[in-house]
Amino acid sequence: MRIPLNRNSSVPLYRQIYSFLKRQIRSGKLPPETKLPASRAMASSLGVSRITVCNAYAELEAEGLVYARAGSGTYIAHSQDSFLERKAEFSATRDWPMWQQELLSRTWEPVHNEMDELITSVDHPDLISFSAGLGAKELFPIDEFGRTMRRVFRRDGSAAMEYGDPAGYPPLRETIAQILTSQGVPTGAEEVLVTSGSMQAIALVAYLTLRPGDVVLVESPTYSMTIDLFRSMGARILGVPVDSQGMVVEQLETALQASQPRLIYTIPTFHNPTGTCMSGQRRRMLIALADRYNVPILEDDFAGDLRYESRAQPALKALDPGGQVIYISTFSKMLMPALRVGSLVASGPVLGRLLALKRTMDLATSNLMQRALEAYITVGRYQAHLRRACRFYRRRRDVMLDALERFMPTGVQWRKPNGGLFLWLQLPEGCSADELFLQSSKEGVVFAPGSFFFPGQRVKHFLRLNFTIQTSERTLEGIERLGRAIGAYLSSRSDTLSESLETKVFHTTV
Amino acid sequence: MRIPLNRNSSVPLYRQIYSFLKRQIRSGKLPPETKLPASRAMASSLGVSRITVCNAYAELEAEGLVYARAGSGTYIAHSQDSFLERKAEFSATRDWPMWQQELLSRTWEPVHNEMDELITSVDHPDLISFSAGLGAKELFPIDEFGRTMRRVFRRDGSAAMEYGDPAGYPPLRETIAQILTSQGVPTGAEEVLVTSGSMQAIALVAYLTLRPGDVVLVESPTYSMTIDLFRSMGARILGVPVDSQGMVVEQLETALQASQPRLIYTIPTFHNPTGTCMSGQRRRMLIALADRYNVPILEDDFAGDLRYESRAQPALKALDPGGQVIYISTFSKMLMPALRVGSLVASGPVLGRLLALKRTMDLATSNLMQRALEAYITVGRYQAHLRRACRFYRRRRDVMLDALERFMPTGVQWRKPNGGLFLWLQLPEGCSADELFLQSSKEGVVFAPGSFFFPGQRVKHFLRLNFTIQTSERTLEGIERLGRAIGAYLSSRSDTLSESLETKVFHTTV
Repeated sequence: MRIPLNRNSSVPLYRQIYSFLKRQIRSGKLPPETKLPASRAMASSLGVSRITVCNAYAELEAEGLVYARAGSGTYIAHSQDSFLERKAEFSATRDWPMWQQELLSRTWEPVHNEMDELITSVDHPDLISFSAGLGAKELFPIDEFGRTMRRVFRRDGSAAMEYGDPAGYPPLRETIAQILTSQGVPTGAEEVLVTSGSMQAIALVAYLTLRPGDVVLVESPTYSMTIDLFRSMGARILGVPVDSQGMVVEQLETALQASQPRLIYTIPTFHNPTGTCMSGQRRRMLIALADRYNVPILEDDFAGDLRYESRAQPALKALDPGGQVIYISTFSKMLMPALRVGSLVASGPVLGRLLALKRTMDLATSNLMQRALEAYITVGRYQAHLRRACRFYRRRRDVMLDALERFMPTGVQWRKPNGGLFLWLQLPEGCSADELFLQSSKEGVVFAPGSFFFPGQRVKHFLRLNFTIQTSERTLEGIERLGRAIGAYLSSRSDTLSESLETKVFHTTV
Repeated sequence: MRIPLNRNSSVPLYRQIYSFLKRQIRSGKLPPETKLPASRAMASSLGVSRITVCNAYAELEAEGLVYARAGSGTYIAHSQDSFLERKAEFSATRDWPMWQQELLSRTWEPVHNEMDELITSVDHPDLISFSAGLGAKELFPIDEFGRTMRRVFRRDGSAAMEYGDPAGYPPLRETIAQILTSQGVPTGAEEVLVTSGSMQAIALVAYLTLRPGDVVLVESPTYSMTIDLFRSMGARILGVPVDSQGMVVEQLETALQASQPRLIYTIPTFHNPTGTCMSGQRRRMLIALADRYNVPILEDDFAGDLRYESRAQPALKALDPGGQVIYISTFSKMLMPALRVGSLVASGPVLGRLLALKRTMDLATSNLMQRALEAYITVGRYQAHLRRACRFYRRRRDVMLDALERFMPTGVQWRKPNGGLFLWLQLPEGCSADELFLQSSKEGVVFAPGSFFFPGQRVKHFLRLNFTIQTSERTLEGIERLGRAIGAYLSSRSDTLSESLETKVFHTTV
């Protein structure tokens, strides 16, 4: 190879070689997979030192223009453009690596993907959705929080942007402990671990206590994301039924004896998805059983603050003096989801392990968000906001209850939830909310089909309605549409039923 | 029980009963565990309906003043004050639940706790610390970022505070893809998953690919938090040595054959803790081996942007057209840790699984932070900030290198890192940086002892220095102190050595 070199130039020789080769490669004169002369040979033919050639080759290699094949030499690489082409070609023609295919076969099928796909597949110009899992956007204290955040930037400067204490910003831990204590869960700041939302708290407890094959007891139905979580870990999920008084704890002992679970996960207050509250008696029974069978309880109090009437039952954590209960709560529902701040309260050595595990999962929850939240809630705004939210949601709940009375066909049942976000609607036995979904979405109204909340066999005749997210007008309109859709669905079914009845009768007579 | 009732009062009868009993309980006249009359009996004795008594009892129960024992009756509860007393008494006198004690015995001992305890135990009025794992606070773009956040609040309102797309805010995914593509990692936005810092990305890949007992291959030494992560999962960690060219990939094939790992975790560029870069040849060899043995590669590019000189080697991800490499990066080092925003790039079906797993771990990364980050980096500020940071860190690195030349005793070795945050200092064989730590902290300087970064047997004669966090003056002062401490340590050792030599000689002559 003949490379013109200018020995009087200020450009180093290796750089001249590099530039020449680069131009050749770019122009296609040196096509991919061409072998370059060995450095020794090139050096000799150019009358330069071997180091000079090596430096030039190294520069080219660093840019991805050439590559060294061990024991063989240096070759022209495929350019970035052709890399993209190769990549596209690859995706189209070859299978993904074996380990990727193995992963698909040995891991779980996420419920949430299915639910999202169903809900986002709906195409209606004026859709009214009751499916979401969060509170009303109108209540997000955007302006006040924005101002608080500005104050924190000014007050704390770069300190707000460091990692911070992995257990949480100490003044925020103090505030959370005070709020919980005032709500009847006596808590010390040292027992509080700040988490990235309550979902992270659930995941931490799950990963600490469960190994593949271990059993976890949950309410059936339960929060659908935890079904994905437990399945993803290879845990076995055992559901305990729910009635108007929450988890049917009377059935728990049999399950405890039979399955030796490693964890009980429960949402005792304004249960997701059914909206029910566990009775005081069952709460005490649950604690006693967990203690006797040596199983930790994970108490998810995601919406305990959102109480619209009737007296609160004590939290499980408040009934447990001995480190049996791990208690979690969140600011996502009460304030805003994008804070991504929740908390976990635990007593005993388990707390240190949860902290260590949290660090391996995301190092720490955003220091900035924690400081802004602490500045926001210590000035009494949290309590004021809570009172306002409860009044607001209570009104919306009542609007939905009235609308249900007006528009639901006979045979559809529900209970009035005393708090939280959700109302659980029951269709006549044998109906399928999954089928209804397809009809109702044509009417322009959707909900969360109940079947997604069952960890075992999917019970189909329930649906979850979020009563907090639509305005009164939209709630009325949406429930009217839903009533129409259910009416149509039921009558189409009764046609089918009477048909099948006729068929049956026919068959019987024959 | 005789309860005075005023039937002409506007206070309902149940409420009068409730108030009377409450006063009795509070005053101690009805002590804990006293059984209340059955509702039927009480109703009859007071001449009220049974419902009235039940309502009163329910109110008391809701406040935690009484509790119902199934099939037995209603009892006075222990008050909240006495609850706290019982709790304190409990903590002092009884063991924690058995499951908590079992957890301690069956889980890992976190390396990071140990390191933190060591470092935070140092009590010196003017301590200079080179131990941290983040960049310089002076570079945090606090004001600009604060302004950007204000703009985002104004622009997006409550939309910024919703959960948002679980895969990440779409414009941010687009931006990340563009940045990576411009840096030689051709990426499509649909291949990007936004994570809560790069630690979460590492955890996601680990939890997806590893089960207890599975083997993971890492560099030895490696990022200490991943040692905690892999141990917490019950994975077996196998270390591959590191030399001046990064992981000694030549030793990899034996390990692949012997241990059938499920994952290779590597930091090929500005390796933590050693600061080395993997050579281009080894990068290609690593890809080829991983492909041949069907093992995914997790490429941690936590500081690849922070390059101060010499040409970049291509990222492993850029060399892999076939979904073998999962690539992660972060904004924590380049911008600010409290953003808690990192990203993961993967091709093939594995991405969907990682997304599903991410949702089970924290639902989504803060939408607000993502929007603010996107607004910040699309206006060209990221690139400007990066150039500024590289100049700044390069100067600080050079200050430390000069100081090391001046102040280090003979026998101490180091290499110049071409980028990143860390410099890896080697003491003479047989020395212990753990022992040195105790001496140097008295001199007012600390570092990260190298032993914490080894996944297997803890090699003790290294220490990691972060050259970016102290000003030039403090770096000079700190390295001078460190030189003194090392000098004193070495001479105390040589005393011990010559003593033990003398002893040996003595013993030999006897």
